[in-house]
Amino acid sequence: MDRVDRAAAEALDADDPVSGWRTQFGGQEGAAIYLDGNSLGRPAAFVVEALNRAVGEWAEDLVGGWSRWIDLPRTVGDRVGRLIGAGPGQVVVCDNTTVNLYKLASAALSAQPGRRLILGDAGDFPTDRYVLQGLAGATGRVLRLLHGHPTEGLSSEEVQAAIDNDTALVCLSHVSFRSGARLELASITAAAHRHGALILWDLCHSAGAVPVDLDQAGVDLAVGCTYKYLNGGPGAPAFLYVRRDLQTRLRQPIWGWFGQRHQFAMGPDYEPESGIERFLTGTAPVLGLAAVDAAASALEAVGIDALWSKSQRMTAMLAELVEERLAPLGASLASPRDPGRRGAHVSVAHPLAWPWCRALIDQDLVVGDFRPPDVIRLGPAPLYTRFVDVFDAVERMEAVLAAGVTDTGERPRVT
Amino acid sequence: MDRVDRAAAEALDADDPVSGWRTQFGGQEGAAIYLDGNSLGRPAAFVVEALNRAVGEWAEDLVGGWSRWIDLPRTVGDRVGRLIGAGPGQVVVCDNTTVNLYKLASAALSAQPGRRLILGDAGDFPTDRYVLQGLAGATGRVLRLLHGHPTEGLSSEEVQAAIDNDTALVCLSHVSFRSGARLELASITAAAHRHGALILWDLCHSAGAVPVDLDQAGVDLAVGCTYKYLNGGPGAPAFLYVRRDLQTRLRQPIWGWFGQRHQFAMGPDYEPESGIERFLTGTAPVLGLAAVDAAASALEAVGIDALWSKSQRMTAMLAELVEERLAPLGASLASPRDPGRRGAHVSVAHPLAWPWCRALIDQDLVVGDFRPPDVIRLGPAPLYTRFVDVFDAVERMEAVLAAGVTDTGERPRVT
Repeated sequence: MDRVDRAAAEALDADDPVSGWRTQFGGQEGAAIYLDGNSLGRPAAFVVEALNRAVGEWAEDLVGGWSRWIDLPRTVGDRVGRLIGAGPGQVVVCDNTTVNLYKLASAALSAQPGRRLILGDAGDFPTDRYVLQGLAGATGRVLRLLHGHPTEGLSSEEVQAAIDNDTALVCLSHVSFRSGARLELASITAAAHRHGALILWDLCHSAGAVPVDLDQAGVDLAVGCTYKYLNGGPGAPAFLYVRRDLQTRLRQPIWGWFGQRHQFAMGPDYEPESGIERFLTGTAPVLGLAAVDAAASALEAVGIDALWSKSQRMTAMLAELVEERLAPLGASLASPRDPGRRGAHVSVAHPLAWPWCRALIDQDLVVGDFRPPDVIRLGPAPLYTRFVDVFDAVERMEAVLAAGVTDTGERPRVT
Repeated sequence: MDRVDRAAAEALDADDPVSGWRTQFGGQEGAAIYLDGNSLGRPAAFVVEALNRAVGEWAEDLVGGWSRWIDLPRTVGDRVGRLIGAGPGQVVVCDNTTVNLYKLASAALSAQPGRRLILGDAGDFPTDRYVLQGLAGATGRVLRLLHGHPTEGLSSEEVQAAIDNDTALVCLSHVSFRSGARLELASITAAAHRHGALILWDLCHSAGAVPVDLDQAGVDLAVGCTYKYLNGGPGAPAFLYVRRDLQTRLRQPIWGWFGQRHQFAMGPDYEPESGIERFLTGTAPVLGLAAVDAAASALEAVGIDALWSKSQRMTAMLAELVEERLAPLGASLASPRDPGRRGAHVSVAHPLAWPWCRALIDQDLVVGDFRPPDVIRLGPAPLYTRFVDVFDAVERMEAVLAAGVTDTGERPRVT
């Protein structure tokens, strides 16, 4: 690639088939450049409309609305499924990622009574590690966390080598929340299956941006959130996937009325639904589901391949600009160098990452997010971010760093 | 009480100090009379405004909104706490009732390793029974479900007599979802404590309408939803209560990042928050929390005592009208005869309850809800229901029944 200049970025925007969607995501002109769609996606106009419609249905139909709302976990699940290569009847949208991880990991461990080992990633997102830690203790399992390279992550080879015939469950994030390093989903799934282990993928940092083909890879279980690239809103309900032929074999531990067969017969004993609904718990969050439905429909219309194609070009530009403009100021790429090993975000390390990140936000320049101890994550969501935004963001980051940032010693309560 | 006529109902409305709030709950003139606020509360104008504000914050503040949103589970919890007699720092709003029941019942059982028995109500709401059934199986406990009278419910005496020194956990609904029968929360709690049992109250059919004084009764644990009398919207997040001095003694099984001390340090090991936040799981549902906050603030402004006073007069009128107008047509009161044993809704039994209920809804007359096999529940939510609504509803029910309803044999998929 030639040296990136702004004209090159403008040319890429002019050619971008996705660019028309940006107008649906208002409030971007003149504001700080938002490169944090990997943490919380922006609200689209059509999502706000869908929320208003759902509130209108509540007002108008009142309790009668449930005759339609009752199907939302499955129908919105099928829609999310189409973004992650899952055929119908294998995904539901419900609860949050933590609860879904707990349900599926617990169900998997119950189905593997003779096996002692749970395999995870020491660099994984906290909730994933904590859920596994809790379940290991509760079920007398050993949790083995692999330590990957801080910026390159685990290699798919070392993960495969760590799976053995005593492994009950392998639980990994497809894309690392921190470095953006991407694991080989298909080959690791195949390795788990060769050893009789079940595999649970966390797709929080993939869904809606990075291609995933759960059915084709024969994945057992997956979870993910809908508030990052899926743009469902802060705390929107999460999703879970259970491969069709596993559904009747697995039972999750939280026996609630939304998982019950013939729910409204209200019978004396819990008898789980035969299909994916058995992984539901209690009353479905209707407004959140309506938002996710609308938000995911846009991604479906654009297509993950188009989004991924743009994303790869944006992160390549970003990585190159980090090397060219920020490395001379002491920053470094904190994501894999090989684009084939990256997800849809790129991280930058610097000893003063926190005050630098804070100054960029406080001066309304760039919104990224800090991850301790020394990383700023930059996620240019392909649906509404322009190539010039990437270019300008790095230029602003360079200017702030060149002007000098000071560490006051304060650390974020929330990042 | 004299024979109820419409003029008497109108006179009660004219004297009603709560009546001014009705204008906030639109769409009621000329529509079917909504007596189902005990199933799904209506949206108030100020709740819709709060939702719009929250969507605006999402658009405006983006990820930066989390610096405030992060506190919502606890601050909204404190507000809900004020409606159920709970001092600050003992309630959080999160997850759904099923998940909250699971977390608290599981935590309670872990804290009672030597005791074998879980005590519940065979007539309780399905999710409560199913959660206990699942946990009994998973922890090697015996679930003993008491069978109460179908309309009078369990007596507080028989519940107290059933608690023994082998009882780990007593889990009951304060007000029965079906009959509206109300248990004596304080005396049953005291009985549980005399035997060293922990007690978990489901307040779904009390919160926001019936006085509850958790702190004064020394209750251990409680859960409830926010979409009934609390008017938080379909599938709005639920609440949970853990008495302050129990919090550090109990550990819930779903170890997520929102329950972690120093959440954003993202440390290697799960170390739960010392306070009520340890009962949180994953990312908080911000829009739902904003709706609950606004909705509960109105109930707080009115005061539970005023609401309960009106509720009791409405259900007394309703019960009397059922006897006077509907009993001659084969219907009967399916709630306790003693007003002192009722909650805020009243049920009516009839062999043709389902087609009767359906006809009332289809003809835009009265919205109640059917509970199999033969009950229609009527919940006149005191915040927005008038005494004339109660009077007119029974008159309409009488007219439809007198005209004749036919059982087609169809049964509801959703009620």
